[in-house]
Amino acid sequence: MTTREQAQAWDRDDALASHRALFDLPPGLIYLDGNSLGALPRATPERVSQVVRGEWGQGLIRSWNKAGWVDLPRRVGDKIARLVGAGAGELVVADSTSVNVFKTLHAALAIARQDRPGRRLIVSERDNFPTDLYIADSLAREQGCTLLLVDAVEQLGPLLDDGEVAVLMLTHVNYRTGRMHDMAELNRRAHAQGTLVLWDLAHSAGAVPLDLHRDDADFAVGCGYKYLNGGPGAPAFVWVHPRHAGRCTQPLSGWFGHAAPFQFTPTYTPAPGVGRYLCGTPAVLGMAALECGVDTLLAAGDMQALRAKSLALTQLFIELVDQRCAGHGLALVTPRTVHLRGSQVCLSHPTDAYAIMQALIARGVIGDFRAPDILRFGFTPLYTRFVDVWDAVDRLEQVLSSGAAREAVT
Amino acid sequence: MTTREQAQAWDRDDALASHRALFDLPPGLIYLDGNSLGALPRATPERVSQVVRGEWGQGLIRSWNKAGWVDLPRRVGDKIARLVGAGAGELVVADSTSVNVFKTLHAALAIARQDRPGRRLIVSERDNFPTDLYIADSLAREQGCTLLLVDAVEQLGPLLDDGEVAVLMLTHVNYRTGRMHDMAELNRRAHAQGTLVLWDLAHSAGAVPLDLHRDDADFAVGCGYKYLNGGPGAPAFVWVHPRHAGRCTQPLSGWFGHAAPFQFTPTYTPAPGVGRYLCGTPAVLGMAALECGVDTLLAAGDMQALRAKSLALTQLFIELVDQRCAGHGLALVTPRTVHLRGSQVCLSHPTDAYAIMQALIARGVIGDFRAPDILRFGFTPLYTRFVDVWDAVDRLEQVLSSGAAREAVT
Repeated sequence: MTTREQAQAWDRDDALASHRALFDLPPGLIYLDGNSLGALPRATPERVSQVVRGEWGQGLIRSWNKAGWVDLPRRVGDKIARLVGAGAGELVVADSTSVNVFKTLHAALAIARQDRPGRRLIVSERDNFPTDLYIADSLAREQGCTLLLVDAVEQLGPLLDDGEVAVLMLTHVNYRTGRMHDMAELNRRAHAQGTLVLWDLAHSAGAVPLDLHRDDADFAVGCGYKYLNGGPGAPAFVWVHPRHAGRCTQPLSGWFGHAAPFQFTPTYTPAPGVGRYLCGTPAVLGMAALECGVDTLLAAGDMQALRAKSLALTQLFIELVDQRCAGHGLALVTPRTVHLRGSQVCLSHPTDAYAIMQALIARGVIGDFRAPDILRFGFTPLYTRFVDVWDAVDRLEQVLSSGAAREAVT
Repeated sequence: MTTREQAQAWDRDDALASHRALFDLPPGLIYLDGNSLGALPRATPERVSQVVRGEWGQGLIRSWNKAGWVDLPRRVGDKIARLVGAGAGELVVADSTSVNVFKTLHAALAIARQDRPGRRLIVSERDNFPTDLYIADSLAREQGCTLLLVDAVEQLGPLLDDGEVAVLMLTHVNYRTGRMHDMAELNRRAHAQGTLVLWDLAHSAGAVPLDLHRDDADFAVGCGYKYLNGGPGAPAFVWVHPRHAGRCTQPLSGWFGHAAPFQFTPTYTPAPGVGRYLCGTPAVLGMAALECGVDTLLAAGDMQALRAKSLALTQLFIELVDQRCAGHGLALVTPRTVHLRGSQVCLSHPTDAYAIMQALIARGVIGDFRAPDILRFGFTPLYTRFVDVWDAVDRLEQVLSSGAAREAVT
């Protein structure tokens, strides 16, 4: 059984350990919820203050050009592109993930109508993140399509092989289970039958290595406030493969997606490429904070190194839970197979999941409860230490063996 | 002719003069562009820093509840509601103006289809702000409607009387001319024929008194970063009359518009009322800054007092330009009739408008140039002084009489 001293030794040997100092973390807290809201980079407060006091307060309207605000969606987009295997100029920061799902799914359906007329099927998973399903359902109704939700991953392949699916829309790493799809294989199987694939990278970007070009994705959206550390409600991002980006417009045709917004022409001419996926005036404060967050990942140099540590962290957590928490009714939800695992571990408990998480939080370990029975723990290799994993399981075992969970909710 | 001393005397007597101290304005600058980007409230940097360092950095995920992030769209919305004559719970802060035009126009068309089946006409003005037209054009194409743009305000009434218009979509104060519509009269004339009216309040909210209920509007959207002083790219707002708010959903059905977002159900149940016009996760930093900006207006107590000063400022500017800048080719674009005037004054120059604005900016007077021939000056009674108006015209006269405009672009 791994001892606390062993975990501390791994931290000493960890080439990424120094990156924890890039973050301003509350002392004594074990934060295993960076997959809900990433931690605060130390650079962010000063940068945001500079934008507020200097660029806005003193520069005022001039800062749209002088401080480069007008370029923020593309500049920060180019940085995120490096994390997901996209090219420069292919990815922009804009709006929320939900809004970007709407834009890209709408565009994918428009392209499917051109290339595969008559196809009316959108496929996703029933336990996909709800906002994606809500948006897909709205578009399906609007466009006379059918949204088909599968209950098991294994159903996807045969469905794709039928050759009737217009668009497959998946979240790469499932928010409830931490299970990761094989992006390359699903894209290949979809494309073999002319199906387009839209990926939500909310739990992947900044968490696992991605290569949208190598894996031949069609569309992708992602979240700024989870592993990208962009802050609460940070703007989201949207990527469109260059083969699709200029083929159609998307319906949220706001002025920032115009080819020349400041000519104020009454008719819409879409910007070339992914620029047409911009809509309204960019959220400058949010984008400035997001840039600081993305910089913390670029500073780590290589998603492969982050991935190796992430797997070591989740593996240690799983092993310690196996060893120390057996007999208390917990079950592992996240796959043991490493290539199916994102950067989180989920456990289920038939009756006490909520109470256990409340008791853990009271003991300084923050994870998530997801109804009805899931305990979710996110591991962010930039700032999670091996000793944090050890201590978290130690406190989990205390909670389980002491009956503290029952007390926490009574 | 008004002297500089007279203008200074008016500032001494101005009951709103002390509110200028609520803003952090660059020394020596005459800022007549608060209608593009409002100035920085002094309270904002500290509040944003508190959100970043405290609520995010220390509170982390817990702040969604403990710091009330989850309520921000409604809390700040209720404050804006007080400025526009809307009731509590009727207005939410969300997304951008462009995105909110999409939501509300889509909803208005859905209701028109129910109540007036067969109507396919959306009417607006050709010189409406382009993003509104781009979105309307997109929706018109998508839904098989026609977007009809009028060139003169006088065409609107007869068009409405024909009884074939589904939705009239107008910006209350025109961004290029400063002309203000008679909201009550247009709503009355539209409703007499069963036409719904959607108002863009981008240049009205915080600038002129509004009473959406008294004037019986149907839908309204507005901008956070102009007269509301919310900062660059601040979130926008959306209001729906209670008689319409529950009648249909809008297509951007993201999880924050769900009746119970944190139950994570796979099917969408819209929140009651205007809550269903929320979409993705709220932009917390932007909303916190926006709340500070809205507070500067609420501190002034009464939009009528702000309106009186606004009209005095624009009147003085017009009179001084008449008196001191005659013979240089400038023409007044904004109506002289006060009830047709927003809180800005626009001048045109047949050849040198861009050069004149560049020369003025070089002399510390910031306004806007709008192609091809418009000089636009915004007057924000919370922080614009009468002496600023006097000095601005003084420098304009210097620019015109010295030929400095020609030099500025050569």
